[in-house]
Amino acid sequence: MNFNYRVILKVLGILLLMNGAFMLLCLPFSIYYGGGDMYALLQASGITSLAGLILFLFTKTKTNNDLRKKEGYLIVTLGWLFMSFFGCLPYIFSGAIPDLTNAFFETLSGFSTTGASVLTDVQSMDKGILFWRSLTQWIGGMGIIVLTVAILPLLGIGGMQLFIAEAPGISPDKLAPRIKETAKRLWVIYCGLTALELILLRMGGMTFFDAFNHSLTTMATGGFSTKNASIAYYHDPFIQYVIITFMFLAGTNFTMAYFGFHGQFRKVFKNEEFRFYLTFCIAASVIIGLIIFSLGHDTFEKSIRDALFQVVSLVTTTGFVTHDYTSWTSFITIVFFLLMFAGGSAGSTAGGVKLVRHILLIKNSLQELKRILHPSAIIPVRLNGKAVNRDITFNVLAFIMIYILVMCFGAIAVSAFGIDFNTSLGAVATTLGNIGPGIGAVGPVDNFAHLPNGVKWILSFLMLVGRLELFTVLILFTPYFWKKV
Amino acid sequence: MNFNYRVILKVLGILLLMNGAFMLLCLPFSIYYGGGDMYALLQASGITSLAGLILFLFTKTKTNNDLRKKEGYLIVTLGWLFMSFFGCLPYIFSGAIPDLTNAFFETLSGFSTTGASVLTDVQSMDKGILFWRSLTQWIGGMGIIVLTVAILPLLGIGGMQLFIAEAPGISPDKLAPRIKETAKRLWVIYCGLTALELILLRMGGMTFFDAFNHSLTTMATGGFSTKNASIAYYHDPFIQYVIITFMFLAGTNFTMAYFGFHGQFRKVFKNEEFRFYLTFCIAASVIIGLIIFSLGHDTFEKSIRDALFQVVSLVTTTGFVTHDYTSWTSFITIVFFLLMFAGGSAGSTAGGVKLVRHILLIKNSLQELKRILHPSAIIPVRLNGKAVNRDITFNVLAFIMIYILVMCFGAIAVSAFGIDFNTSLGAVATTLGNIGPGIGAVGPVDNFAHLPNGVKWILSFLMLVGRLELFTVLILFTPYFWKKV
Repeated sequence: MNFNYRVILKVLGILLLMNGAFMLLCLPFSIYYGGGDMYALLQASGITSLAGLILFLFTKTKTNNDLRKKEGYLIVTLGWLFMSFFGCLPYIFSGAIPDLTNAFFETLSGFSTTGASVLTDVQSMDKGILFWRSLTQWIGGMGIIVLTVAILPLLGIGGMQLFIAEAPGISPDKLAPRIKETAKRLWVIYCGLTALELILLRMGGMTFFDAFNHSLTTMATGGFSTKNASIAYYHDPFIQYVIITFMFLAGTNFTMAYFGFHGQFRKVFKNEEFRFYLTFCIAASVIIGLIIFSLGHDTFEKSIRDALFQVVSLVTTTGFVTHDYTSWTSFITIVFFLLMFAGGSAGSTAGGVKLVRHILLIKNSLQELKRILHPSAIIPVRLNGKAVNRDITFNVLAFIMIYILVMCFGAIAVSAFGIDFNTSLGAVATTLGNIGPGIGAVGPVDNFAHLPNGVKWILSFLMLVGRLELFTVLILFTPYFWKKV
Repeated sequence: MNFNYRVILKVLGILLLMNGAFMLLCLPFSIYYGGGDMYALLQASGITSLAGLILFLFTKTKTNNDLRKKEGYLIVTLGWLFMSFFGCLPYIFSGAIPDLTNAFFETLSGFSTTGASVLTDVQSMDKGILFWRSLTQWIGGMGIIVLTVAILPLLGIGGMQLFIAEAPGISPDKLAPRIKETAKRLWVIYCGLTALELILLRMGGMTFFDAFNHSLTTMATGGFSTKNASIAYYHDPFIQYVIITFMFLAGTNFTMAYFGFHGQFRKVFKNEEFRFYLTFCIAASVIIGLIIFSLGHDTFEKSIRDALFQVVSLVTTTGFVTHDYTSWTSFITIVFFLLMFAGGSAGSTAGGVKLVRHILLIKNSLQELKRILHPSAIIPVRLNGKAVNRDITFNVLAFIMIYILVMCFGAIAVSAFGIDFNTSLGAVATTLGNIGPGIGAVGPVDNFAHLPNGVKWILSFLMLVGRLELFTVLILFTPYFWKKV
């Protein structure tokens, strides 16, 4: 046997057990609000836990020691798929989303922290199910932090090694204990920030339920809302500024947040990606804000706030909406479309390309102009003051190329179902980037319900591929992955 | 002085003298058809030649020996600009295009072999001016062959070194005599093919004038037509098949054509880019042909022919039109939009990205998946059986990145003038790729006349940047280019 399937199945069993336990967390809301969704949640939790228990008990092996690289890839991809297949049971059993295609789309949109939805009226839904929907994003976000900060760098994915040196307490030699240690530290920050946002939103006047849900989906850069109009429902500037702040924090490299909490601000501001992230968000918001103000959108403060909200929402791939940004001008639409390719910071819960990759490739392109004039000189790309290994630059460049290829093939596949030009591009960009709303007929005030089933499966695949940094999933489709060594 | 300005000015003088002489070639048509454009052509030719003569005579220096790399860049960019500024004189003097913005756009669209036009009714124009319009493309195409086969590889632009080894009689050590020798060989092929197409089109029933013009603009992959409806004017399948064949030949690496004419077909079919080019064009045409046939477009033969014509027209960046390809379905529109990024073969008159770069980057991306699994193994990208130097792969990757960046900034800049989403993307893709027609309001049956002047200048810049393989122009905007050594 080429792979240690027992280890893989055991880990998947553990994940399903956790998934079943998480479902039970929705029960208090189900009971308190007296919706008819309690039985569905219990049933889903029972089946999921049972499946997890079977996998766990019937595969006797020690988990950590036997993990190899190839098994890592399988666990990550299968993990997300298993979570999503079992995670859609509450929707199906409760009748909230009766068919598999839509339920799977919504669940994967949750676990991948995308936030694209097939639901048209969330406000009328049972609260237990609605909480499950928000919780899938928060779980997905938690998974992503572990994945990007601890696992992907060791698997050599897309230049993720780039910031491994920055992560507190990580060294690639000893896998398991380090992962645990690092993950614990980062989860403390993740949970702490979620709790802090909950309190602030509650202070701003949200109900406890809404505040809880929105803080879960903000910190995951997910973007599911409990209101049909998303954050546009809340006119209070305080609430919007709180959400802007926490979207921004959620899109920050969590190791930077770690340094920040330990007062090491110099380290944070010396980080090139963070500086770029901050400057970029502010600059884009001010420019767009001034443009929409000059177009007579609203007061000066509201114009800047709406611009800031949408810029941060798209750059961090959250996908909350306070205004239909495709309703302004085609210029603004194009800018927002391009912002979908930004993708927050590496090591955050944000999806998409990630700013550090953009920085690296822009620098490399500019260096290439120098290299052409001086072909014999060795001109390395520097990041945070250090020369970047050429292998990593290669890896990042390959990442971007594959991102574009997947984007092109995705757009062709979606448009083959008769979807128009704008909508195809928008739907593919927003799902591959794990954002949520796109442009065209899947814009900020629309949703994905009206798309054909085939398109929903394509977009689901893109959400998964995008979330797992492309290589993790795509490597499984290569023949040499399955070749016996 | 950092640069040898005398050499640069001298070469520019020679180019202007040639430009002035070319203008005189339009006189026979002016006289024969008795249009009122004779005086304008004489005047333009006189001024251009005089300017050339002044530059040539007042800069005493030996041309060839003193040429250095930096001067090469300046000559190439300034050469295209000078040719275009003086080349628009016939339009202005004859009143065919009275204002500078439009005249410059049309001329640069000619010399860059783009084929985007601001003219709405070419059939009513004076024949001398119309011939000048076609001739600018042919001159541009001739310049491009010299540039890409002989000059760019030596300047180290965008992986152009890749096929230098394939070119007959080129070695980078001795610049000037080799350029002349190679250029002569390739021009013979270029002129020969142009003449052959002229004869075939004449046999197909075109007038001598139309056959001459269309053969000039086909071989340049330019796409200017003497008919308002482009090639859709000619319903004869023979004419369309002739043009398809010669567009394909013009989009082939001219060194392959050289081998072909010497009966070395094995060498041609062993070339990976050529194989890909041939397979890609046929496969795309058959798929699109079957789709539009199933949509009830026309007979089977006509559906395949229309598909083949449009695919070859876009892949080779010619831009001739037999049918409005944006009128079918959004799927077909997206496919044709993406085809705009193909860009024919390197070393042909085609613009755009070029297929060899796509092949290289797709291969590199797939290799990266292998490299991730086996990080210590050295896995080079192979092209035509040889391992490609990593520096070249780097250069090509940087080229693509800069292409995308220019594309994004271009789309933002164009949309800032209030141009809609589709049109902005289409106009930028088609001018940067030197194709001609785009999508949206600059589609196959529209033209560029209605765009604001600012947009026309932006698009003109993009035509130049795209034509000169990005780096050649962009390097002039870097501070280290101008730094004294």
